[in-house]
Amino acid sequence: MTDWAKSLLEGSRRALSRILTFIENNEASAPALMAALYPHTGKAWVVGITGAPGTGKSSLVNVLIKAYRAQGRTVGVIAVDPSSPFSGGAILGDRVRMEEHSGDPGVFIRSMAARGNLGGLSRATRDAIRVFDAAGFDMILVETVGAGQNEVDIVRAAQTIIVVEAPGMGDDVQAIKAGILEIADILVVNKADRPGAAQTVRGLKAMLELGHPSSKESLISHHGRLTEVPVLPATNTHEAIWLPPVIQTASLEQKGIAELITQIEAHRTFLTDNGKTAAIQDRAIELELYERLQASLLQRMIRATPPAQVLDLVRRVRQREIDPQSAVETLLTQNDGQP
Amino acid sequence: MTDWAKSLLEGSRRALSRILTFIENNEASAPALMAALYPHTGKAWVVGITGAPGTGKSSLVNVLIKAYRAQGRTVGVIAVDPSSPFSGGAILGDRVRMEEHSGDPGVFIRSMAARGNLGGLSRATRDAIRVFDAAGFDMILVETVGAGQNEVDIVRAAQTIIVVEAPGMGDDVQAIKAGILEIADILVVNKADRPGAAQTVRGLKAMLELGHPSSKESLISHHGRLTEVPVLPATNTHEAIWLPPVIQTASLEQKGIAELITQIEAHRTFLTDNGKTAAIQDRAIELELYERLQASLLQRMIRATPPAQVLDLVRRVRQREIDPQSAVETLLTQNDGQP
Repeated sequence: MTDWAKSLLEGSRRALSRILTFIENNEASAPALMAALYPHTGKAWVVGITGAPGTGKSSLVNVLIKAYRAQGRTVGVIAVDPSSPFSGGAILGDRVRMEEHSGDPGVFIRSMAARGNLGGLSRATRDAIRVFDAAGFDMILVETVGAGQNEVDIVRAAQTIIVVEAPGMGDDVQAIKAGILEIADILVVNKADRPGAAQTVRGLKAMLELGHPSSKESLISHHGRLTEVPVLPATNTHEAIWLPPVIQTASLEQKGIAELITQIEAHRTFLTDNGKTAAIQDRAIELELYERLQASLLQRMIRATPPAQVLDLVRRVRQREIDPQSAVETLLTQNDGQP
Repeated sequence: MTDWAKSLLEGSRRALSRILTFIENNEASAPALMAALYPHTGKAWVVGITGAPGTGKSSLVNVLIKAYRAQGRTVGVIAVDPSSPFSGGAILGDRVRMEEHSGDPGVFIRSMAARGNLGGLSRATRDAIRVFDAAGFDMILVETVGAGQNEVDIVRAAQTIIVVEAPGMGDDVQAIKAGILEIADILVVNKADRPGAAQTVRGLKAMLELGHPSSKESLISHHGRLTEVPVLPATNTHEAIWLPPVIQTASLEQKGIAELITQIEAHRTFLTDNGKTAAIQDRAIELELYERLQASLLQRMIRATPPAQVLDLVRRVRQREIDPQSAVETLLTQNDGQP
């Protein structure tokens, strides 16, 4: 166990691969391993890249990898795979990209699949980010599909969030944009060589003007309020504000990539210079603690509850003798939930 | 409170609207209201309609409404809005559709927004389904974007799950298909008047042949295994098996809609005749109990924990003095989580 951690810190890519699998499978000793690695984290810059299917996120990630490598920076990529909440298989596209960089020890690409519900994916992704961080990668790119709560939760672990759009994707995508826009630090109109790119840029700029300026703060405080979970107070809104730039890119011809990289650096500098990194980290950590607490509490409760009692309650709920929340209250009253 | 429930059961659309808002806002007395309504549920047939942005799900829902109304059946629609995990606003498209049916008391369309994380949306959606059910709607259509774990959790509350595809959506969509396919009872290739429809049908059929036959069972037992939550045993796999049909539709010209409705009925008959409805309900109820238990346990724990202790742990995690899971263990040890 500690041998693996030691190898990882010494740069072993084999240890990296094994530890990521270990974490994804949620092995019993994974917490001990993560505890050993945790003091070695906090050095990488984590960039979240999110957008609807068809916006070309994967190609954009691929050109970002090349650009960072040309600067001599190492890059870890976590592709959160929406395709397999159950099967856990890596998707073909990731395999292809992995091969393209397979000769380069400064690049490591990993597909993460959702493992069960109840927060498994966001836990595993956060842990994977820390493993890459401890392994010494300079940049960590986390790619997710920009639809769904879990995906928003995942991308929240990033320090800089890029939302990718593409021209002419229809009304459904417009709708997604409305919500995801609130968490964007940088907006990218990819496939900008296609017709309608200028219109998409105008649309995004118009929506930005209507939206909240201090997006990440409002995201997290909303989360707090709505889940009735106490969160740290929002930072002073009179402070310096980051206005998300809108950048046009075309992955195939490398258009706009240099500007995108410049803006990622500018955002990093903005957060650091304005003392915002600690506050953003604190809120993300607080929510992570609640998510983990919830999972631990449920496990403890299940161990303390006779399975026959659960099965009996399930049957009574199905037969409409008791409603689901009252069934839960029964479980809470009859079992103290202690180990 | 009970007045509202009484009005709802008597068919008041105003009570329906108010109760849905009440539930969405997670008001303190919502559990009492749901308990009062619960004995009146279990009569409607719930159809989940899921698919990537751009596949035309909303238009399909619209033509389904018209077809069911032509049969004299009442229809409730819950559009789970992925666009606004935070703002809670209804999207423009839903408003437009609502207006189209606004003169018809046999149709009621409601947009649900995600309220915070930690399972708020799946709880609210399940409750909303029950409100429509108690209000006496014959068919309840639940529309979600088919990407992300939460969306899969939501659609699982449906008895018949329709996965919608469209021709020529690129590689990203292919990837989504791989995971979502496992939960499909009926596959629809919408926009079948577009080029490439036959190819999409062939692709889906090929994937089906590779996939699991008893999709819904395997979904839930996987969930159970992976989250380390005990679940009821899977039903005998030698039983009758439903093979998901692949149907081509074109919403604008009503192509394939009659066949789709026929297949929804066939699936309903299949589940009922083979005694599968109780087993499917039991597993969905069991997972719902765990989700609700988790939320209640967290609330209880937070009430029992001094905020200063949480803030101190957050700071120590940020400063890498303690890792997140160890911080959670500290909270679990120092607070018994009792009310």
